[in-house]
Amino acid sequence: MIYWIKRFSRYRLNSFYQENRQNPLIMVQTIVTFAPMASIKPSVPKGTRDFSPTEMVRRNFIFDTIKSVFRKYGYQQIETPSMENLSTLTGKYGDEGDKLIFKVLNSGDFWNEAERQKQKTGSFEYNSKSLTPLISEKALRYDLTVPFARYVVMHQNEITFPFKRFQVQPVWRADRPQKGRYREFYQCDADVVGSDSLLNEAEFVLIYDEALSKLGLKDFTIKINNRKILSGIAEIIDKADSIIDLTVAIDKLDKIGLDGITKELIERGFTEADIEKIKPVILLEGTNEVKLESLRKALAGSTIGLNGCDEIETVLNYIAICKLQSANLELDITLARGLNYYTGAIFEVKTNEAAMGSIGGGGRYDDLTGMFGLKGITGVGISFGADRIYDVMEELKLFPAAASQSTKLLICCFDKEGEKFALPLLQELRRKDINAELYPSGAKLKKQLDYANSKNIPYTIIIGSEEMESGLLTVKNMQTGVQEKRTVEEIVGE
Amino acid sequence: MIYWIKRFSRYRLNSFYQENRQNPLIMVQTIVTFAPMASIKPSVPKGTRDFSPTEMVRRNFIFDTIKSVFRKYGYQQIETPSMENLSTLTGKYGDEGDKLIFKVLNSGDFWNEAERQKQKTGSFEYNSKSLTPLISEKALRYDLTVPFARYVVMHQNEITFPFKRFQVQPVWRADRPQKGRYREFYQCDADVVGSDSLLNEAEFVLIYDEALSKLGLKDFTIKINNRKILSGIAEIIDKADSIIDLTVAIDKLDKIGLDGITKELIERGFTEADIEKIKPVILLEGTNEVKLESLRKALAGSTIGLNGCDEIETVLNYIAICKLQSANLELDITLARGLNYYTGAIFEVKTNEAAMGSIGGGGRYDDLTGMFGLKGITGVGISFGADRIYDVMEELKLFPAAASQSTKLLICCFDKEGEKFALPLLQELRRKDINAELYPSGAKLKKQLDYANSKNIPYTIIIGSEEMESGLLTVKNMQTGVQEKRTVEEIVGE
Repeated sequence: MIYWIKRFSRYRLNSFYQENRQNPLIMVQTIVTFAPMASIKPSVPKGTRDFSPTEMVRRNFIFDTIKSVFRKYGYQQIETPSMENLSTLTGKYGDEGDKLIFKVLNSGDFWNEAERQKQKTGSFEYNSKSLTPLISEKALRYDLTVPFARYVVMHQNEITFPFKRFQVQPVWRADRPQKGRYREFYQCDADVVGSDSLLNEAEFVLIYDEALSKLGLKDFTIKINNRKILSGIAEIIDKADSIIDLTVAIDKLDKIGLDGITKELIERGFTEADIEKIKPVILLEGTNEVKLESLRKALAGSTIGLNGCDEIETVLNYIAICKLQSANLELDITLARGLNYYTGAIFEVKTNEAAMGSIGGGGRYDDLTGMFGLKGITGVGISFGADRIYDVMEELKLFPAAASQSTKLLICCFDKEGEKFALPLLQELRRKDINAELYPSGAKLKKQLDYANSKNIPYTIIIGSEEMESGLLTVKNMQTGVQEKRTVEEIVGE
Repeated sequence: MIYWIKRFSRYRLNSFYQENRQNPLIMVQTIVTFAPMASIKPSVPKGTRDFSPTEMVRRNFIFDTIKSVFRKYGYQQIETPSMENLSTLTGKYGDEGDKLIFKVLNSGDFWNEAERQKQKTGSFEYNSKSLTPLISEKALRYDLTVPFARYVVMHQNEITFPFKRFQVQPVWRADRPQKGRYREFYQCDADVVGSDSLLNEAEFVLIYDEALSKLGLKDFTIKINNRKILSGIAEIIDKADSIIDLTVAIDKLDKIGLDGITKELIERGFTEADIEKIKPVILLEGTNEVKLESLRKALAGSTIGLNGCDEIETVLNYIAICKLQSANLELDITLARGLNYYTGAIFEVKTNEAAMGSIGGGGRYDDLTGMFGLKGITGVGISFGADRIYDVMEELKLFPAAASQSTKLLICCFDKEGEKFALPLLQELRRKDINAELYPSGAKLKKQLDYANSKNIPYTIIIGSEEMESGLLTVKNMQTGVQEKRTVEEIVGE
């Protein structure tokens, strides 16, 4: 009984109370059991997370690395508000997306105001859809792309194009939480708008290469495709609507072979003649250059398809001059993400060292700001999947053991005299930009050393009466346990 | 007429339409005028802001400086979710505060769910208060203190005390926006819980001193008081409820003199005898030591008051050993912020170089986590007012002209050949961690140099056919206009 009530939500407990208020025995049990619930441990909303000091150091390492590379390539940081007008966001992510936007309840007497507006409209049916616009006019941002488009339109007179911006901020989605999927998570985007040069595409490949190499990844693949190649393939067989069916099938070549693919495509309405035409596409292999050569032959009849090949070739040529550090760059015509909005290059990044989906992606879109009335602005952008990169780095043990951000040295002392002795040394170290702490006096040495260990502080200095008399302090390396005597001057000098 | 309609909100336009639908002339005008509204410029919710690249560089400078000082003193960063359960926040900020919490509408079919729950409760009156808990269970955090208390309780078994944490994240308040007051703004807090040592208070004074000095402030005052001194004053005249009246009156000494204060206090119910007893407190002046001496005499009859004096003295003694860089530390018994929750030290920071309210504040609280069922945890913390510090720094022109984060060098070229020539140089510079850009070919030189100027890029390199032949590139200092010829090797070397 008690166990059962404990699992009650507050609301269910309330209805239980209403039903059983005539039964004194149950009521006593309910009250007794309810009492400890007041001091139940607090929690965070599902799908959201706290980040501990250790996690923050690691997350900062990832974000700082990516940001420094963005800056190196001339990208500038902006931030937009967490809340946008609901009208800015609605309709930009499809019907399914709209449902996943977190709406913010109007402040003040929202219900009175809703009633007032409702009366003007005549008959009114109460439901979530009809009420939402009356009680909510703001929402949490769902991604960084739509707010960026809004930013560009709002600030178009202050911006010099091409505008290269990056943005690292949380976004919120009312998705069903599951492993690796959260309701609040950071996006890490760089975009350039107002330049159609393919140099931008090439530089994004370099940015992925440099940032992920700096994070310690050694074997990863940047896949590149071009929407125009996909359009070209669809054009030569006159099947624009089936391009996804086609790429899904081609992707299975290793598993089911040409015969399997042929069978699958015929089931999906492709003809033998279609398949004959695109056979070179299905069997595409070799280096990027060889693949491009085959594609050009297959797409000879499609202007847009050949144009896509030219674009890919230009990007590859830029990269050939610049050289990649660790990335494999692979033309992959089965890459078909974002077909609804990408109009040129399409990117996706995968690590080959861990089983993990895409850790980054992006592409070119030709009309980002059109939704806010500013036409003809082309753009291209990429995104890093920070949470997944975190998981990969943890699995591969790539996080530096000694975080540069944490305390380097803890001074331990035992009384007010020790504190007085320690404080000038402490401040001297801090003046030299060394992160250092003095444990407040009064605690036993074991407690102080436990504190150092729990914070991964690599060195401790112990100041007892003997040390104060001799002026020789004991410096302990907490990793090796080695202790050495040093004067204050020596410590500060080192 | 047109002007008038343009100022309509969408909803008012709708009611205008309902009222005038029988009048064809007005309707035509309405439709014609309404059409351009669809492409009206997008906006952000009132009280929220976009931050441009220039503003971000400056904000990062402030935040990075403060964070680096927090770390130097052993504080570790955490982050908590933007949304907390409504039950975590409600009742923690008083009735007025509760009204200013932004509530998040439940996702899914919230109205259907609300109806379901409503039926269980029997009779139900529709209003904002009764509906809120049925349609919202999450809210945006209102400050960083309550989420921190929740964090400490939730993670108490993973935490080693004393726990020194800092947190720099936005908070949201449904306040009426006005100059300098926003609905979304960053808080910048450091707190230590689980240590009653006054060394912590002293270190917060040092943190304020070091961080604000590093930001370039030269003349600022850290005011310190102690709740126990205020309690002591109230105790000797037996007027615990009037302590605010008293401090407000004392604060006017310069303006209205002792006679004015006496008059005001008597109007507020103090007796002549009261005033005689606290006259030394009203007339308190001199150095902190002299003030303490006078206070001890006046508070001789109050144990708690003397205890407060001891605490202040201990903090002053710590500071005397460590020395301050730029701050004036001033014992100010009129400082009475946060009397509802502070139980020991009270801090406030003001700049003397600009007319601005407090740019920081904090204090000690004895039962932070009690609200979540964990008793007996004492803590002390401070906060930096980042937005106000930004305004002060802008007024005093303290932001570095050349931001270290932006592009150092722009390479200008005019054709594909120039790009090919430029790319290896560009990547060489980037490999040396120099932020550099290549303007995509095809634009006129003027446009490229305008771009450099708008981004405050200090150097440009121009690559024309002559430069490619000779190998001598023209490096232009954009500030002075001076141009010099350099080889690629020389540029990379420098």
